[in-house]
Amino acid sequence: LIDLLSRGAPVDPDVLVGIGDDAAVVRTRPGQDLLLTCDLLHEGVHFRSSWYADRDPGLLGRKALAASISDIACKGGLPRFCLVTLGAGQDLTAEFLTAVFSGLYALAREHGISVVGGDTVGLAQGLLLDVFLTGEVQTGRALLRTGAQPGDLILVTGGFGLARAGLELLDKPPARAAACGLEAAVRERAVAGQLRPPVRLAVARRLAATGLLHAMSDTSDGLAAQVHHICRQSGCGAIVRADAVPVDPAAVGVARACGVEPLAWALWGGEDYELIMTAPPAAQPALLAAMAGAATEGQDGRCELSLTAIGRITAPGEILLQREDGTTVPLDFAGYQHFRLPGEGAGEERF
Amino acid sequence: LIDLLSRGAPVDPDVLVGIGDDAAVVRTRPGQDLLLTCDLLHEGVHFRSSWYADRDPGLLGRKALAASISDIACKGGLPRFCLVTLGAGQDLTAEFLTAVFSGLYALAREHGISVVGGDTVGLAQGLLLDVFLTGEVQTGRALLRTGAQPGDLILVTGGFGLARAGLELLDKPPARAAACGLEAAVRERAVAGQLRPPVRLAVARRLAATGLLHAMSDTSDGLAAQVHHICRQSGCGAIVRADAVPVDPAAVGVARACGVEPLAWALWGGEDYELIMTAPPAAQPALLAAMAGAATEGQDGRCELSLTAIGRITAPGEILLQREDGTTVPLDFAGYQHFRLPGEGAGEERF
Repeated sequence: LIDLLSRGAPVDPDVLVGIGDDAAVVRTRPGQDLLLTCDLLHEGVHFRSSWYADRDPGLLGRKALAASISDIACKGGLPRFCLVTLGAGQDLTAEFLTAVFSGLYALAREHGISVVGGDTVGLAQGLLLDVFLTGEVQTGRALLRTGAQPGDLILVTGGFGLARAGLELLDKPPARAAACGLEAAVRERAVAGQLRPPVRLAVARRLAATGLLHAMSDTSDGLAAQVHHICRQSGCGAIVRADAVPVDPAAVGVARACGVEPLAWALWGGEDYELIMTAPPAAQPALLAAMAGAATEGQDGRCELSLTAIGRITAPGEILLQREDGTTVPLDFAGYQHFRLPGEGAGEERF
Repeated sequence: LIDLLSRGAPVDPDVLVGIGDDAAVVRTRPGQDLLLTCDLLHEGVHFRSSWYADRDPGLLGRKALAASISDIACKGGLPRFCLVTLGAGQDLTAEFLTAVFSGLYALAREHGISVVGGDTVGLAQGLLLDVFLTGEVQTGRALLRTGAQPGDLILVTGGFGLARAGLELLDKPPARAAACGLEAAVRERAVAGQLRPPVRLAVARRLAATGLLHAMSDTSDGLAAQVHHICRQSGCGAIVRADAVPVDPAAVGVARACGVEPLAWALWGGEDYELIMTAPPAAQPALLAAMAGAATEGQDGRCELSLTAIGRITAPGEILLQREDGTTVPLDFAGYQHFRLPGEGAGEERF
């Protein structure tokens, strides 16, 4: 659909990166490029208000902004100005909406982002939050999906599968029942993975500043899906090692309790707001050193600052998953399907 | 609600105009300011897809972008980069959505705007389009709602009431029946006023370039509402002369057929994408001369390049409507209620 809709979009020499990456990159002045991105959270597709009303409504505003920050961060940019479109159903109270915005503003303040406007509309029911965010990056230094080269390592921050595990616990009574034997801390960690994603801004900027990365993106649309995007846009193939994918321990616990293979949630669960990047193997020590520096800055209450090589970029060809027994199979894309909540519309594509 | 939600928004010295005007103005480099705005069109609140499916779906995309262009234009800015968030129900075909975007792209191309990204999401039903637009304006030259001064004339471009007349004909069978005796051209003009609003970009830039305006905004939220916004934000009062408000002749025809006072649609109907500005009386000849120059540029197929003084800015105090008999009454705000379609949610506020 995106390819279809993209046809006929005006062409402009000042657009360094338009349709097709996490954020648009446009030239506004010598020395500095402007990043533009937006991210919609829509009730019934991405979340249910009750998840947040039962806990902290501020987490909903926080997540809406975190999603856009992730797009700016993974380009190596610094987020700056934000607009918020709010659609709110008549069933929602002003108290709830105020709390939603408080969470958004708190995260904005933490990262020096100014919320400078927006639009609101009253709906019959439900809630939508569309966050537009600008960012700045030194001219020509934006990290794109197009720069991967054969021989590059594929590296990721953090662990995977957590957001999907949290979604299952929040939205599916059978999963909750299956997981009731787990430690409360495990279940809470999974739910937090869905409701309170990490913000990898400081880490992204440190990694970008090394100048050693060939490509970077985030994994919110799914880890496997993003490997596909990078390969397609860089004109490369890839091989991902199943045993190298870092699956969050809590996701492993919930998945096993639900009778699901944890790796499936890690590869296709989506909404894990981690960074994925490619770089020559020789860059790995310097990248690890950059990560270690970020550890002292505090990562939004989390300390999982691992950087894991999960595979390699290969010459143009297949995108493969190497299983633990050494055999390979095509790596399914299928990353967006997690967005589908029961009884609701289809998934999401970025453009 | 906006005032409530705005509380706690981060403060930033680089934000020249944040929450509270048509577009945000932020400083990005010496000599140039960046304008940011967004505008959501949501099915069931602002429109019905069937209105466009029966005619030209491209007009929906065109209107979505036109709304944001209006916000940039009325600040004296030049629109540049655009992101589009699309939410689309499963009942909508790819053909329909492609046509919607074609109309958006055509208008973008006409005005040198680059569509550089966005987000899409599948919904159970309905359609939403959220257009985010940046613009550029010479540093410090953005025209705001805050600059009106006592003694200023209040001037408007074009005529009013047309979009509301079109809404009645599109959405209300009794209005259609009442108007069936009118000439087809009158009814078509009213429907076009709703579906194909004017784009006052060239005029706005010419008017702004005179350097004579104290304040400017657009009237999409309603003419009376915008007088209120300007007065509140400038700390002034105003008096609007009922007999001076230019009501579009087709709106007069439809309103009378429906048994409605045409002035009511002109003042409170909303969605007339005209410009409203304030300037000292001595500036009027120069402003009219600037308008005349714009007439040769072609105004998106329309030629109603009138500039009409509808009243005066007064010292802080009441906002009054002077009736034809010379008596005055408070000018009701009430400009946003037009957005309410039967059976749907409440109206809209900008922030």
